[in-house]
Amino acid sequence: MATENPAETAAEPPTDCADDLAYDVFARDCPSRDALKHVTDRWGSLTLGALLDGTFRFNELRRRVQGVSEKMLAQTLHALERDGLVHREAQQTNPPRVDYALTPLGHQVARQLQLLIALVEDRMPQVIEARERYDARHPAG
Amino acid sequence: MATENPAETAAEPPTDCADDLAYDVFARDCPSRDALKHVTDRWGSLTLGALLDGTFRFNELRRRVQGVSEKMLAQTLHALERDGLVHREAQQTNPPRVDYALTPLGHQVARQLQLLIALVEDRMPQVIEARERYDARHPAG
Repeated sequence: MATENPAETAAEPPTDCADDLAYDVFARDCPSRDALKHVTDRWGSLTLGALLDGTFRFNELRRRVQGVSEKMLAQTLHALERDGLVHREAQQTNPPRVDYALTPLGHQVARQLQLLIALVEDRMPQVIEARERYDARHPAG
Repeated sequence: MATENPAETAAEPPTDCADDLAYDVFARDCPSRDALKHVTDRWGSLTLGALLDGTFRFNELRRRVQGVSEKMLAQTLHALERDGLVHREAQQTNPPRVDYALTPLGHQVARQLQLLIALVEDRMPQVIEARERYDARHPAG
């Protein structure tokens, strides 16, 4: 949108994305919004990032993704598996053992996510400075 | 970590990231984790994506980011402003008018995020297929 006041001149955007065969996270009911959420929410992003390092068992992942609860990690892996990003493989061992790994699609997405994570980590000194400037201008009262 | 069972052989990772001057989102208390969260949570990611199109007033942004409440958009903009990603400018007009735009840092981060969003949107047919396969294997009961 290149107009000066896009919201005033543009027609109401569609609320889903099925009609034009294009997926659009800005559309309220587009399933891409959920998929993006699974990839980028706190535990989803850290889980995908961890799995870039290889195959992990559940408890290994829990140690790597610090602070995640058992329940939240299970939910996260479930959503990523359903979206086709994570492959879950139960090994026929005694005791039984379940491995989690990225699918090829999950690898593509995790690599792109990793670039974002690396950028944010790299720019943290600027972010910290900005926070200090902001807090100095807006003292808690 | 290239070992087969990293969690068993590696030392406990640090829970913050101040000591070694490197920011690490996997560390529980690292401030980069919050910054990443502000960038990638549902409304943060959509707000940054919208602002790639230019400068918006509050209500214009609300229409663009479908489904966001006034309160959530205000909180989102507040966090992004504090992190130095969004610039808020109050115009001396009558009625007063507040514009929101990306800072140069916000532009870098939003562009990287946009690549991730574009990838997820592009791969949605595969995600939808994966969901259908998963649901066929796991009928709700």
